Amino acid sequence: MSWNTFGRVFRFTTWGESHGPALGVVVDGCPPGLALSEADIQPFLDARKPGQNRYTTQRREADEVRILSGVFEGRTTGTPISLMIENTDQRSKDYSEVAKAYRPGHADYTYDAKYGFRDYRGGGRSSARETAARVAAGAVARLVVPEVSITGYVEAIGGDAIDPAAFDAGAIRDNPFWCPDPAAAARWESLVDDARKAGSSLGAVVGCRAEGVPAGWGAPLYAKLDAELAAAMMSINAVKGVEIGDGFAAAANTGEGNADAMRPGSEGPQFAANHAGGIAGGISTGQPVTCRLAFKPTSSILTPVETIDREGNAAEIVTRGRHDPCVGIRGTPVVEAMMALVLADQKLLHRAQCG
Amino acid sequence: MSWNTFGRVFRFTTWGESHGPALGVVVDGCPPGLALSEADIQPFLDARKPGQNRYTTQRREADEVRILSGVFEGRTTGTPISLMIENTDQRSKDYSEVAKAYRPGHADYTYDAKYGFRDYRGGGRSSARETAARVAAGAVARLVVPEVSITGYVEAIGGDAIDPAAFDAGAIRDNPFWCPDPAAAARWESLVDDARKAGSSLGAVVGCRAEGVPAGWGAPLYAKLDAELAAAMMSINAVKGVEIGDGFAAAANTGEGNADAMRPGSEGPQFAANHAGGIAGGISTGQPVTCRLAFKPTSSILTPVETIDREGNAAEIVTRGRHDPCVGIRGTPVVEAMMALVLADQKLLHRAQCG
Amino acid sequence: MSWNTFGRVFRFTTWGESHGPALGVVVDGCPPGLALSEADIQPFLDARKPGQNRYTTQRREADEVRILSGVFEGRTTGTPISLMIENTDQRSKDYSEVAKAYRPGHADYTYDAKYGFRDYRGGGRSSARETAARVAAGAVARLVVPEVSITGYVEAIGGDAIDPAAFDAGAIRDNPFWCPDPAAAARWESLVDDARKAGSSLGAVVGCRAEGVPAGWGAPLYAKLDAELAAAMMSINAVKGVEIGDGFAAAANTGEGNADAMRPGSEGPQFAANHAGGIAGGISTGQPVTCRLAFKPTSSILTPVETIDREGNAAEIVTRGRHDPCVGIRGTPVVEAMMALVLADQKLLHRAQCG
Amino acid sequence: MSWNTFGRVFRFTTWGESHGPALGVVVDGCPPGLALSEADIQPFLDARKPGQNRYTTQRREADEVRILSGVFEGRTTGTPISLMIENTDQRSKDYSEVAKAYRPGHADYTYDAKYGFRDYRGGGRSSARETAARVAAGAVARLVVPEVSITGYVEAIGGDAIDPAAFDAGAIRDNPFWCPDPAAAARWESLVDDARKAGSSLGAVVGCRAEGVPAGWGAPLYAKLDAELAAAMMSINAVKGVEIGDGFAAAANTGEGNADAMRPGSEGPQFAANHAGGIAGGISTGQPVTCRLAFKPTSSILTPVETIDREGNAAEIVTRGRHDPCVGIRGTPVVEAMMALVLADQKLLHRAQCG
Repeated sequence: MSWNTFGRVFRFTTWGESHGPALGVVVDGCPPGLALSEADIQPFLDARKPGQNRYTTQRREADEVRILSGVFEGRTTGTPISLMIENTDQRSKDYSEVAKAYRPGHADYTYDAKYGFRDYRGGGRSSARETAARVAAGAVARLVVPEVSITGYVEAIGGDAIDPAAFDAGAIRDNPFWCPDPAAAARWESLVDDARKAGSSLGAVVGCRAEGVPAGWGAPLYAKLDAELAAAMMSINAVKGVEIGDGFAAAANTGEGNADAMRPGSEGPQFAANHAGGIAGGISTGQPVTCRLAFKPTSSILTPVETIDREGNAAEIVTRGRHDPCVGIRGTPVVEAMMALVLADQKLLHRAQCG
Repeated sequence: MSWNTFGRVFRFTTWGESHGPALGVVVDGCPPGLALSEADIQPFLDARKPGQNRYTTQRREADEVRILSGVFEGRTTGTPISLMIENTDQRSKDYSEVAKAYRPGHADYTYDAKYGFRDYRGGGRSSARETAARVAAGAVARLVVPEVSITGYVEAIGGDAIDPAAFDAGAIRDNPFWCPDPAAAARWESLVDDARKAGSSLGAVVGCRAEGVPAGWGAPLYAKLDAELAAAMMSINAVKGVEIGDGFAAAANTGEGNADAMRPGSEGPQFAANHAGGIAGGISTGQPVTCRLAFKPTSSILTPVETIDREGNAAEIVTRGRHDPCVGIRGTPVVEAMMALVLADQKLLHRAQCG
Repeated sequence: MSWNTFGRVFRFTTWGESHGPALGVVVDGCPPGLALSEADIQPFLDARKPGQNRYTTQRREADEVRILSGVFEGRTTGTPISLMIENTDQRSKDYSEVAKAYRPGHADYTYDAKYGFRDYRGGGRSSARETAARVAAGAVARLVVPEVSITGYVEAIGGDAIDPAAFDAGAIRDNPFWCPDPAAAARWESLVDDARKAGSSLGAVVGCRAEGVPAGWGAPLYAKLDAELAAAMMSINAVKGVEIGDGFAAAANTGEGNADAMRPGSEGPQFAANHAGGIAGGISTGQPVTCRLAFKPTSSILTPVETIDREGNAAEIVTRGRHDPCVGIRGTPVVEAMMALVLADQKLLHRAQCG
Repeated sequence: MSWNTFGRVFRFTTWGESHGPALGVVVDGCPPGLALSEADIQPFLDARKPGQNRYTTQRREADEVRILSGVFEGRTTGTPISLMIENTDQRSKDYSEVAKAYRPGHADYTYDAKYGFRDYRGGGRSSARETAARVAAGAVARLVVPEVSITGYVEAIGGDAIDPAAFDAGAIRDNPFWCPDPAAAARWESLVDDARKAGSSLGAVVGCRAEGVPAGWGAPLYAKLDAELAAAMMSINAVKGVEIGDGFAAAANTGEGNADAMRPGSEGPQFAANHAGGIAGGISTGQPVTCRLAFKPTSSILTPVETIDREGNAAEIVTRGRHDPCVGIRGTPVVEAMMALVLADQKLLHRAQCG
């Protein structure tokens, strides 16, 4: 079942295909009276948009957002906010090969298996272009949680990780990789460039940290803050793993080693550590909310891969065209957007029940 | 906001506290005409129930399930199925300490921060006893997806992992650890026993595999099969990480290494590998659906931990009482149940849209 | 699709059949800290319960409610509140006739058409006994909207209406008919008694009025306060019509005649009339919220009616047993409960978006 | 809380204001493979659009719909269908009066009470222009239920009703009133014209009938077919009452008079009557599904009405501009659309649970 709405009270619904005329999002449930114009959204779209350097796809989209409803005299009215981004660079390439044979690792086969046919142009609805709509919605969500500061970054590319001790949030936007460690960023230049030239692709680990989340957001038991984040992040194209706080490292730890001791503080408790990633029992503790995501390497590569065609015959496919050698890089602003969207929803849900 | 319902069309709502009179679940949207009696549910509850060996909590609960509605003459009627399990061993221990000071890593502080007060007896609603209700619901879900076979198992305890080459599904229930590798199971006896005697606790990695899922279940974009699984699994107590297929290993891989090549087969395509965990673009491929979960070590340990009391003063706490030294072990049947519940929902959703 | 949950953030899920062991409701999303015990719920169940006088069914149920979760030390905890009512008087009558042939106007045929078979004992899930669970949930909802005072009453039975000029809210509970006009109540004694003796049944019009609802509850466009009320009321057994404010009378009026002129007031505007029933644009105006419901006469009558049996053969059926000659009477406390449940949900929704 | 999505599995989300650049709808959950182009939608928009004769508002909108997503090579893909209609005739009139004082009966005061301010141009989000989006979505819904034939019509204007014996479905579109009785249509010409000239307005009763609905659609207990219809219809601007089948007339009837006797038939039972409006126990019987709606007279009249301004001071208001003298007329295609939308959702829900 197609399900393109996310959220419980602060909800957004995205639509659009890679090669259709436009894509967009309807944001519903937004509080009224927030100052909002295209200028509040555009910078986040610009940070995500393709064609900005040689490490990302060379598709060139202006990704200009237009507010079609829900704002009056510069403020949100409380009614649905419709945002639209026109597609301008749907290159009229030849799709006959991809129309006929399935690209392994893409949604080609599964869409056909589910729906009987598919829009094969540029991945159709399964294209990561849809994430532009999420980023636009995320910009609205940020206005709902002004107390929160969200930082996304790339922790590792192709297994080459940053040095956590060298983490510098101020350096993240100084390089094309959203990398908080300048030394790693320098290494990644050749790493990613080599992959690009070879027509290969690389996986990545993306981290995200939200500071300023007060204690008490979240919910037992099926709208837990961590469960909502897991769903949000796993819904991003290419994400195959989600960790909250220490994640899988906690599975190798002991109760003593994993304890986040509490001490008296002037504004709520002070925590001696944050193994939990700022969430206990599904509810925020007041510490930074942290998560890590695994992005797989894109399946769009120049090396021929065995596959089958629509009739089930053996075939071989090479994915030509303009692709990101490491989708995790441009996935980072999408991760930030999903964090904002989940937190905005949880803030309103908390207010609903607890005043 | 308290949210105790999971699912979109096959939905279940759980209720109950650790030390209340009972706990239960209402399963709604179940197809009519399925043969169902308590005997279909009880074995799954028995597999989860406490007090069965020295590696789990010594709380003794019969965990006898009673069907209160939705079944007539031995078959589901299509109306809500109410299942209830009475609590019988809520030992009348002294909770004055835990009522006063927060156990770090538990939901004590966050429930207070959210709701202003909490039922502190045995963790109240945040207790893993709630998962008995999920296991009961999961038994109903299994009847909805008889084509699917679900196998949960423990892959690692405290960092000591099984040998994948030694994986023997038939051995899983031959040891108290849900361990598919007899050699690892032998090692874990002393590992877990030592932790228990020391009043410590251990994390674990739990795997789950669903065979028989046809291609086509799932959905773009926010009810993706992997996103639904991520939410389901992350909602289980103590889970801090979720991987689909290769998960974080994919993040260190290349597009070539991560490709699941397809070949012609008599019943749908044959895949050369399953890095994707049986899901592409959020929709099942027909391969086994696989995931891995990180369970943190429980925070209930005998080593004193710094904390604060309800008034914000410094305190120290030791969590006495009957606890699982490794909650991942008894979490395994819960993981199986959540897998069944997600698949049942996705099967019905697919049928709704695609007939 | 079976759907037994109502509400968006203040949600309740009912379960149970007429002749099963029990019925109940899980209330989720209730704010924490509200004083709640069985004594807060029981009076509303008592007002609805059968067998209290000769104008209602002679089935005798204690309808004793038990709180199974969600309350600790006398206050709601914010977690799901499970309420259960055991069935005690499921008379072991012979259901062979009703099992075989369909009672026209009942859900017998439609349940079979939908589900393939049905629990035929006393109507199973389609029995009005389910409304006991709603009344219990409604008692909780009232605690969420203490600023609101709800008054349900019967306006007409079998076409014999009250005199609006004689409306006396204080008289409603002085007669067995929830009638605010003592003269009408006196007439109805013989009217209803005659119907009962004749094995006939009568329809009724039930009104409901909520005072104290502040301006601003409700929502554009599909969770309008009037749309939510319409769904809530139409979901009650036997209801076939819903009016807000003047309802169908407005359809015969002019814009001038239907205007609710506004004048300055010390606490918000004063309205010269309330044709709108306290709702404009789906949002409360601050005036009393008023609605009227049409209850059909129950189809359970002693006059033989032509029907068919399960095999499609011609048959004739007489509905023996204990039935309400006018289901609208006992429907009145259910209407009050649904009003409270909708308002509680809308209050929390309003708070979520507008703080 | 703003809630602009309707439906459970076949869902649509509308957006847009009367005087914004455009309005639209996203339809999600639509089955794949249905032939769909703008030409399938446009006729329904044309039937609703303003300015077609002197009995409706003189605002002139082309109401040209554009499909922005979800259709590929002329067929629905199963992904969200985005439909957009540009506003072209937002006359730049002076709104200073309506910005300052509240029009009684409109949503002016309630929007301000809820949101703190409002888009006052042409009613903003509360304008009936939003219903164009519903009509567009309804055209898609009709494709999902091709077995169903839906007929909407006006039964009465300003209290002047059709003669049921003269009902002629073929005559409905032969007059500007959706009137199935030519004699009544002739009377209404002067009736409506006089109201228009006087700057007055008239209420109306609209009926709707869906033939071809099979037995079994609908659900106990809160997604009953009649409850869903009630919510859908009551969410339409100006609707104040909903009846299913006999509605309020049933409330004045007896069980004998209200019985829909059943007789054997070659294709399911034959019913001797349809007092129930084709729904029993919330589930369709296989008979035509019928309902009636009360539309109030619009509050936009030239007679001055007492009101207050935003500061709470006494004022007087006259609603100038282009308005429908009887909104029920153009409401009729909206009623048809909502019927289609509810039935499409219920068909898919039924298939989800019952195969």
